[in-house]
Amino acid sequence: MSARPIRVVIYGCGNMARVIVGYLVEKGADVVGAIDSDPALVGRDLGEVAGLAEPLGVTISDNADGVLDATMPDVVVLTLLSLMSDMEPFFEACASRGINAVSTCEEAFFPWNTSPEITARLDELARRNDCTLLGTGYQDVFWGSLVTATAGATHRIDAIRGYSTYNVDDYGIALAQVHGVGLDPAAFDAQIRAANVPSFALNVPPWLAGALGLDVSGITQDLEPIFSSGPITSLTLGREIPPGQVTGMLARATATTVQGPTLVMEVVGKVYGPRDVDHNDWIIEGEPRTELVVTEPKTVELTCATTVNRIPQVIDAPAGFMTGDQLGPVAYLPDLLTTTLGID
Amino acid sequence: MSARPIRVVIYGCGNMARVIVGYLVEKGADVVGAIDSDPALVGRDLGEVAGLAEPLGVTISDNADGVLDATMPDVVVLTLLSLMSDMEPFFEACASRGINAVSTCEEAFFPWNTSPEITARLDELARRNDCTLLGTGYQDVFWGSLVTATAGATHRIDAIRGYSTYNVDDYGIALAQVHGVGLDPAAFDAQIRAANVPSFALNVPPWLAGALGLDVSGITQDLEPIFSSGPITSLTLGREIPPGQVTGMLARATATTVQGPTLVMEVVGKVYGPRDVDHNDWIIEGEPRTELVVTEPKTVELTCATTVNRIPQVIDAPAGFMTGDQLGPVAYLPDLLTTTLGID
Repeated sequence: MSARPIRVVIYGCGNMARVIVGYLVEKGADVVGAIDSDPALVGRDLGEVAGLAEPLGVTISDNADGVLDATMPDVVVLTLLSLMSDMEPFFEACASRGINAVSTCEEAFFPWNTSPEITARLDELARRNDCTLLGTGYQDVFWGSLVTATAGATHRIDAIRGYSTYNVDDYGIALAQVHGVGLDPAAFDAQIRAANVPSFALNVPPWLAGALGLDVSGITQDLEPIFSSGPITSLTLGREIPPGQVTGMLARATATTVQGPTLVMEVVGKVYGPRDVDHNDWIIEGEPRTELVVTEPKTVELTCATTVNRIPQVIDAPAGFMTGDQLGPVAYLPDLLTTTLGID
Repeated sequence: MSARPIRVVIYGCGNMARVIVGYLVEKGADVVGAIDSDPALVGRDLGEVAGLAEPLGVTISDNADGVLDATMPDVVVLTLLSLMSDMEPFFEACASRGINAVSTCEEAFFPWNTSPEITARLDELARRNDCTLLGTGYQDVFWGSLVTATAGATHRIDAIRGYSTYNVDDYGIALAQVHGVGLDPAAFDAQIRAANVPSFALNVPPWLAGALGLDVSGITQDLEPIFSSGPITSLTLGREIPPGQVTGMLARATATTVQGPTLVMEVVGKVYGPRDVDHNDWIIEGEPRTELVVTEPKTVELTCATTVNRIPQVIDAPAGFMTGDQLGPVAYLPDLLTTTLGID
């Protein structure tokens, strides 16, 4: 078995990609191409954009087809958008060429219930061209394999309850608006709760069910406004939010299963006050009851490390649109040799 | 594929076995025999001893050879003793007959470094007779797969540090003595630290190394006395321990690896005060740093559930003395059907 570096194309050169490029280079991957449509990035060296000490010799291009055809990498890292409807053409560009792709797209973590037609189309295309598509990131471990590991020490699961928070102020005005930030309660009910747009919480219970050998019999979503007890300043809104106005939203997905256990995921996105930090807490109710707390997880770095660590598994996985529950836990990659095992 | 219940013999009918028997019955296993040498248990129905609502129709016998020969079960559950030197004849009774065995023996979690000759002998015997021996329990998840799951979200591991505590007062006078409970500092140094008896902390770093694809290059153990700031009552000693006398011991195992990461396990066994609870905390230092806390784990129930959940994996595993790092994470068993898949 001859080991060679994995050949990677970076598609999307924003904040996440910059961290991922550093990780890939440190692990000895061969970054052979970079794609972005932002005129401020096109023509620049990827290493420079990623803040590396040296240029990578890879120029960011806005010609996606050209880069993919010229490089035909082992895998493409897609760090672009959060919804499958927005990501479909990017996944398709890879799958139509038979190129594996991993994406930090949040919905891609388990897109079968929220975007079944798009996912089935991409799955069929990937199978036909013998490549694998996967959504991964923070969720793959902290909403996924950590929970199934704990379940392995449980005799009887009555319910699994996850609670995760993030700061809406970190992600721009579009996200703040779909969280109803700055609305009064009546406007939140009319604009947000009534629309009941699928949240990323909905993608979690079916992933867990798949990993635990359970069959989902029904799933519902609730959206609840969050309020602050005192005034709180939103950088994204550029103003103070007074008590009584919405500072964010709790999205709760509740799944029932044929076998009995209830699977509940609560995701809170809100404008943080000075004492708020990210939470990632899980409770397994049953025999016995177990509580798991991840203290102030470094969500960005954990997402990028998970994405890189998934690469060898994606290259080795069966063809199709896979989800992490099918691949088993993400494995730590201690060194380059492991990274490149099984490629040739 | 025809599914039938897994046939289990219980070897050791103490506190752990009683919990395990309840779990096995609820999962639909077929408990076909029970062995214990305690005259207070011999001749009694296992279901009655385990506190089940109905008798099991299984009489506890002190004739181990007779029960094993007559039943030839799929697996034996060994809940007897903590050290490999004490467990060798019991593992041998199973392996010499080609019967799989799972054990809650603490050292059996990863016995290759602390009892290499015994483990190699049992491994050879199990391979020759095509059966699998495994040590499992709480450690398999809370010192094992939870840590490796978190590592899967880590780019670079500098060190992994585990911290776990238990109440020495729960386990009788022999354990209290090897922890130096009630000694003064000079006596602790002379009797405990100087002897430096291998602790269960020593079995953890090599398990983690195996699961993470690392090679241990060296391992050391430190034993440190624990003191209380105020007087504390030990039920086991039957007296108050004044400040200045030892209330327990911290055992720290520190492993270096060829690839770089340091693996540290700290296990504290001490007489608990009224506000002490079990801890199970992990820190991964590196890129990024992650902290994981299990809040007041129910150690007994988690050990018993893990042991039961490991059974199908042990039956399907390659022959030999296996360790959990080789088998992958313990999987939750949602129902009887899953429990009995792949047996015939």
